[in-house]
Amino acid sequence: MSKSISIFDTTLRDGTQGEGISLSADDKLKIAKKLDDLGVHYIEGGIPGSNMKDIEFFKRVKDLNLRAKVTAFGSTRRKNSQADQDDNLQRILDAGVPAATLVGKSWDFHVHTALQTTLEENLAMIGDSIAYLKSKGLEVIFDAEHFFDGYKNNPDYAAAVMSRALEAGADWLVMCDTNGGTLPHEIRDIVTSLGLHLPGAPLGIHTHNDCELAVANALSAIEAGVRHVQGTINGYGERCGNANLCSIIPTLQLKMGYSCIPGDSLPHLTNTARYVSEVANVNMPVNQPYVGSAAFAHKGGIHVSAILRDSRTYEHISPELVGNKQRVLVSELAGQSNVLSKAQDMGLSLDPSSEQARKVIDKIKDLEHQGYQFEGADASLELLLREATGEMNELFTFESFKMLVEKSAGKPVVSEAFVKLKVGNETLYTAGEGNGPVNALDNALRKALLAHFPQLKEMHLSDYKVRVLDEKDQTAAKVRVLIESKNYTDTWSTVGVSANIIEASWEALVDSMRYALLGQMSPETTELLDLGQCGLINH
Amino acid sequence: MSKSISIFDTTLRDGTQGEGISLSADDKLKIAKKLDDLGVHYIEGGIPGSNMKDIEFFKRVKDLNLRAKVTAFGSTRRKNSQADQDDNLQRILDAGVPAATLVGKSWDFHVHTALQTTLEENLAMIGDSIAYLKSKGLEVIFDAEHFFDGYKNNPDYAAAVMSRALEAGADWLVMCDTNGGTLPHEIRDIVTSLGLHLPGAPLGIHTHNDCELAVANALSAIEAGVRHVQGTINGYGERCGNANLCSIIPTLQLKMGYSCIPGDSLPHLTNTARYVSEVANVNMPVNQPYVGSAAFAHKGGIHVSAILRDSRTYEHISPELVGNKQRVLVSELAGQSNVLSKAQDMGLSLDPSSEQARKVIDKIKDLEHQGYQFEGADASLELLLREATGEMNELFTFESFKMLVEKSAGKPVVSEAFVKLKVGNETLYTAGEGNGPVNALDNALRKALLAHFPQLKEMHLSDYKVRVLDEKDQTAAKVRVLIESKNYTDTWSTVGVSANIIEASWEALVDSMRYALLGQMSPETTELLDLGQCGLINH
Repeated sequence: MSKSISIFDTTLRDGTQGEGISLSADDKLKIAKKLDDLGVHYIEGGIPGSNMKDIEFFKRVKDLNLRAKVTAFGSTRRKNSQADQDDNLQRILDAGVPAATLVGKSWDFHVHTALQTTLEENLAMIGDSIAYLKSKGLEVIFDAEHFFDGYKNNPDYAAAVMSRALEAGADWLVMCDTNGGTLPHEIRDIVTSLGLHLPGAPLGIHTHNDCELAVANALSAIEAGVRHVQGTINGYGERCGNANLCSIIPTLQLKMGYSCIPGDSLPHLTNTARYVSEVANVNMPVNQPYVGSAAFAHKGGIHVSAILRDSRTYEHISPELVGNKQRVLVSELAGQSNVLSKAQDMGLSLDPSSEQARKVIDKIKDLEHQGYQFEGADASLELLLREATGEMNELFTFESFKMLVEKSAGKPVVSEAFVKLKVGNETLYTAGEGNGPVNALDNALRKALLAHFPQLKEMHLSDYKVRVLDEKDQTAAKVRVLIESKNYTDTWSTVGVSANIIEASWEALVDSMRYALLGQMSPETTELLDLGQCGLINH
Repeated sequence: MSKSISIFDTTLRDGTQGEGISLSADDKLKIAKKLDDLGVHYIEGGIPGSNMKDIEFFKRVKDLNLRAKVTAFGSTRRKNSQADQDDNLQRILDAGVPAATLVGKSWDFHVHTALQTTLEENLAMIGDSIAYLKSKGLEVIFDAEHFFDGYKNNPDYAAAVMSRALEAGADWLVMCDTNGGTLPHEIRDIVTSLGLHLPGAPLGIHTHNDCELAVANALSAIEAGVRHVQGTINGYGERCGNANLCSIIPTLQLKMGYSCIPGDSLPHLTNTARYVSEVANVNMPVNQPYVGSAAFAHKGGIHVSAILRDSRTYEHISPELVGNKQRVLVSELAGQSNVLSKAQDMGLSLDPSSEQARKVIDKIKDLEHQGYQFEGADASLELLLREATGEMNELFTFESFKMLVEKSAGKPVVSEAFVKLKVGNETLYTAGEGNGPVNALDNALRKALLAHFPQLKEMHLSDYKVRVLDEKDQTAAKVRVLIESKNYTDTWSTVGVSANIIEASWEALVDSMRYALLGQMSPETTELLDLGQCGLINH
């Protein structure tokens, strides 16, 4: 039996049914290019004629000259009509694609309830539609909607649907678990049973994640003989999403001995997943399998000391195989090995047995005890470690800030900030407004620093998180602020802690700018700067 | 064979190994209470003695009188030593819990690499430690770390580990897929094989999600005979997380015929999942199976018209079974019944077909669209509903507030607030200081109101949470503030939303005081009050 699996990506069609996922034609073209680079076999682009975006996509995708087959999605012909006069089928032909995905009913309940037609007419709709598209030279992938629910309810009818599709010339017969409610052992049994009914038929699988089993169900079908799998990047899709190709592909390829995409493409998987999440403007869960930023991140102290000895002790694969990397998180649960391995990553020479090392580890522990958390604030940690090894980059001498929020009945709230500091011998006193207090502080601080550090123009805040640390103490509790910043090439995170949310934000804000300028200042500039207090993490 | 499954929750221990998850002792106690209400059998609280939080947790959890067994986690004794002189085991005993989770090695590679001892000594460490804790009257759950990797590498040794644990008196023998790299069919085969080796032994399963298969692997083990499953709420845990109990429990109970938690607890599942994510301050993915806000949300037009005819057409279960609800992303039907049932709970007569009811439901929807969330803010919802039915309790006419935060080099940060408002015809203008801006506002507002509403003396803020809603818009993003307040008898929560964190806090603060005075004012007092704007949820 062949050990190669055909990968069908429907991020651009079923993926966009997910809540919060909306892709422009441009977005879709970018993602299509990326998917093609990864080496998937089919890219389902959308529903031609359903909206202007999809029409534009199918028009422009031809210019990309993709190796993957682009497919257009549509339903079987309407009941009691002719395939060659069906608008939907005509639109698929007009899209000018080499392949079509046709969806048809295979659950008798749906034929009655949703289509409101007879079982025999539904079979005719399927047979006619496939035969018509085949006669026009298209490859046809038949998606049997609700196949598993249908099979449980009426196995003979569900099987008859597949037989009819096969007779009509369908290239793939895809069993869909549309509602996502089927379990892996049921998938295995039903696929096996259909395989016996249609020996050698080209079977495919399409699963949804409503029971958190979409990936397991796809693998279960493949074990039972299926050779075509449909899914989306990052598992985007309606309700709980579709089967996640970013988990299916590496598992098939690295653990089950199947080939899906070219071996030299697999290390592009993490980058592809993150790229698609950026284009879709959806935060990627840090703990996403294989490709998430925490997928190979270690926090427990025992784990960390073991992986430093041999990474197989707590890693199921080498992260580089999928283009990801190992990370060691610094937290109170962890010991000194975490900190030292971080320093090594940064290329800092920190002798583990030195007084210097002991001091900085004690300081980090003390800060964590105060409520700082460095696992989400790599940049603040790097600043601390660089300070410990004698590298300094104080930007300015802090003198004061004031922050004013004012609200009068019937008027919008106003936020203003005033910042006073010295760069070299020059005293700067600036004011800024904003939508909120942190925005106002950012604007005032930026105004003061830009003349001296024009590179700051390139950076901006991209994320802001607040955590109240000890809720027992009412509003006098401590607050931890995490700020994420970006420039054209990098993203970094910083932390601030205080009983006062404004002060905590200020700390994280200043660290964020210090980090942006790391290594960007000439030695002369550095010398010019006063090395006094500047409101950073208290030293 | 028994069809009941023992549920072991490790959110408070393994869950906190997840990146970004950090729980205070208070957080842990709140979650423990919620888990107990749900009806899990074991609650693993932490590692006694590893840090102050866990020590405090084990001390205070006794006062909660939970039905669930609280367990403390630790390793088997150190090599070449005696169990009764082992610090770790002593700390477990000191925790005063009825059950212990002991982790031991079952992968020969780890015995050599991580423990650096002999296979025989590792067996002795396991046997001695279990026997010692059993002799002290504890129930012992033995977690065999890396059991599946161990079994693949050296099945005889992995089996010998389990035999030794059983002989020593372990109550559960838990097979852990610590690295999360095992596949469902491997789990099935290995569990079956161990079951033949130790017929009738009390087997358990602990899986991780590194291949997006944690839930499938747990179910696969249960199918092969396991009767104890370990996991976390929302799948929190190291790297890609642990097996998600919020998916395992309903699948076992609704689809596989097992009983796990009391049947009348299952509708609390969604609320439990969301509560834990709130306490952990981690955004819950909208598409999380069973309990996510999009888990039963329908977007496609065809899907929507079909579910309106019969929801089984595109829903694998009825969402109410797990306490979730159907949402139609384009329709107005969602939520209405919830709101009406809330009103009924409060004893309000709100006729479902009235203009009044339609208006308040529209308003709640509009507020939710703006980012308000009433699931964690019952008091704000109650105020809205009471307003809709004509009950008013405006405390004052808002005129203005000012909030000033000031920080100078070398001095502590100062927060001051100034509040101007009218009660009846009297204008009040007060100033307050505080550790932070919200504390200062609370103090200034209280000062203004206390003379008229002395009952406010009895209430105080007990919890304060901040959530940034749209993280893409930098510091201009919207912020949701939840405030929990208490008096001698009650606890209530209120919400505020604004691009400005100070304004959002003000809204929640004012609602909190309005709620405190609900029903406490005589009709005369009520009439005296002006019914104008007071900076509440915008009306």
